[in-house]
Amino acid sequence: MKIAYTVEDVKSQVRQWKKEGLTVGLVPTMGYLHEGHESLIKRAVAENDRVVVSVFLNPTQFAPNEDLASYPRDFEADTKLCEGAGAALVFHPEPSEMYAEDACTFVDMTAVTKELCGKSRPIHFRGVCTVVNKLMNISMADRAYFGQKDAQQLAVIRRMVRDLNMNVEVVGCPIIREADGLAKSSRNTYLSEEERKAGLVLSQAVKLGQKLVAEGEKSAAAVTGAMSELISAEPLAKIDYVSMVSWDSIEPVETIEAPVLVAMAVYIGKTRLIDNFIYEG
Amino acid sequence: MKIAYTVEDVKSQVRQWKKEGLTVGLVPTMGYLHEGHESLIKRAVAENDRVVVSVFLNPTQFAPNEDLASYPRDFEADTKLCEGAGAALVFHPEPSEMYAEDACTFVDMTAVTKELCGKSRPIHFRGVCTVVNKLMNISMADRAYFGQKDAQQLAVIRRMVRDLNMNVEVVGCPIIREADGLAKSSRNTYLSEEERKAGLVLSQAVKLGQKLVAEGEKSAAAVTGAMSELISAEPLAKIDYVSMVSWDSIEPVETIEAPVLVAMAVYIGKTRLIDNFIYEG
Repeated sequence: MKIAYTVEDVKSQVRQWKKEGLTVGLVPTMGYLHEGHESLIKRAVAENDRVVVSVFLNPTQFAPNEDLASYPRDFEADTKLCEGAGAALVFHPEPSEMYAEDACTFVDMTAVTKELCGKSRPIHFRGVCTVVNKLMNISMADRAYFGQKDAQQLAVIRRMVRDLNMNVEVVGCPIIREADGLAKSSRNTYLSEEERKAGLVLSQAVKLGQKLVAEGEKSAAAVTGAMSELISAEPLAKIDYVSMVSWDSIEPVETIEAPVLVAMAVYIGKTRLIDNFIYEG
Repeated sequence: MKIAYTVEDVKSQVRQWKKEGLTVGLVPTMGYLHEGHESLIKRAVAENDRVVVSVFLNPTQFAPNEDLASYPRDFEADTKLCEGAGAALVFHPEPSEMYAEDACTFVDMTAVTKELCGKSRPIHFRGVCTVVNKLMNISMADRAYFGQKDAQQLAVIRRMVRDLNMNVEVVGCPIIREADGLAKSSRNTYLSEEERKAGLVLSQAVKLGQKLVAEGEKSAAAVTGAMSELISAEPLAKIDYVSMVSWDSIEPVETIEAPVLVAMAVYIGKTRLIDNFIYEG
């Protein structure tokens, strides 16, 4: 497995692969990889001749009040996980390699980004769209892999690729959970033992929501209300949002008809966790 | 020469060419082609195995008060010119083929677009960036050709391609002029005989500016002032701007040091014409 630190090193390697007729899968990550990322890499390895994993803690998708500085890092462990999962190349650029001093171009959207995390993180998706657009161009990927845990991000990236006619297939992959249900996240490392237990309210709320919908509940407010009540019973939990939106246009819905995304963001102490489920109808 | 009306038709043709190892040049146009466009196509034909010309009057780069509805069209003449110049494919989509009803993604920039035409046409470059980004993805072009007549557009596209790490080379080509100096433009067709003569003040101002700079004038205000004076002497001319900016970051300059762009937009009657020169220093 190769490690590349510059755009040009990635491009020259990928150009070589393309000349040989090989397909390329991309798994964009911010590092501190866990079994969720691993499942994306393994899926990419199964479906492509070569897999590029980017490990880049992208500053432009964090607001000043967010956790960029404290975000966990362990590049050595990341490279081991990538190698074990069968990646061919890890791209680990400095921010200055990704953003020239006079960089001024951005990719953004006027819809899909407005609800859920877009509400509480208003500049987030501009940063995500721009960096993922760049990583797709750098890796010349045929397919790119994203976890459904960041469901809105998956919808945003799918829309960007469709709207800009990009030559890459976006593959969404299932949420990977701990044995007790907590969705895998690099941010789980922030949790104290007590918070770790409290964090279970997210997956419990997901289960409750799935049960209500499966039983025929048609009111979005009834579903999200019951989920919110469950979460609010946990003293360490503070709800950012529990919402039902259309999948995958991410517009508010009142009644469950077409496919919907039920998503939540919840602070456990100072740590913001997300979880969700998609109901295909 | 083929004519394609859908994104998928272009992509499947280009995929075939790429499989055969052929290079692709793109010439994006809004139609009503003249010798300026022809020179771009011929340059592209000389430098690539296959050339795609897009003929698409892009609505998103026109403001409501601008000339989208009256912009001249002649697709039959356009296809003849493309064929004669050696293009392999003309892409002529309907707006609905380029923009889905729920399209919401755009590409824009926080610099380069602020001066010159960006000042008087505030949404223009968002539309240009987005459609050119799409056309580059659709055509999978190795090189894309733009006239220096739209110098700011050339700078904007270069910056976009650099910032987003796109896999296409942007080639700038010289301004093509009528025998008497008027820069070729599809909008010249709007001019009455009298206005056609008055329009010569633009190229005369270019010549004057070039002379002053060549003679050693270092003050931007002195150069643009003299040019403005020449233009203002023509009763049918109304200046939108005559400006000197850095090339190619398009920031205002007071003193001529590094490469500069001296650019103007002038209304002749109701028709807005542009012209410019670049001084490399």
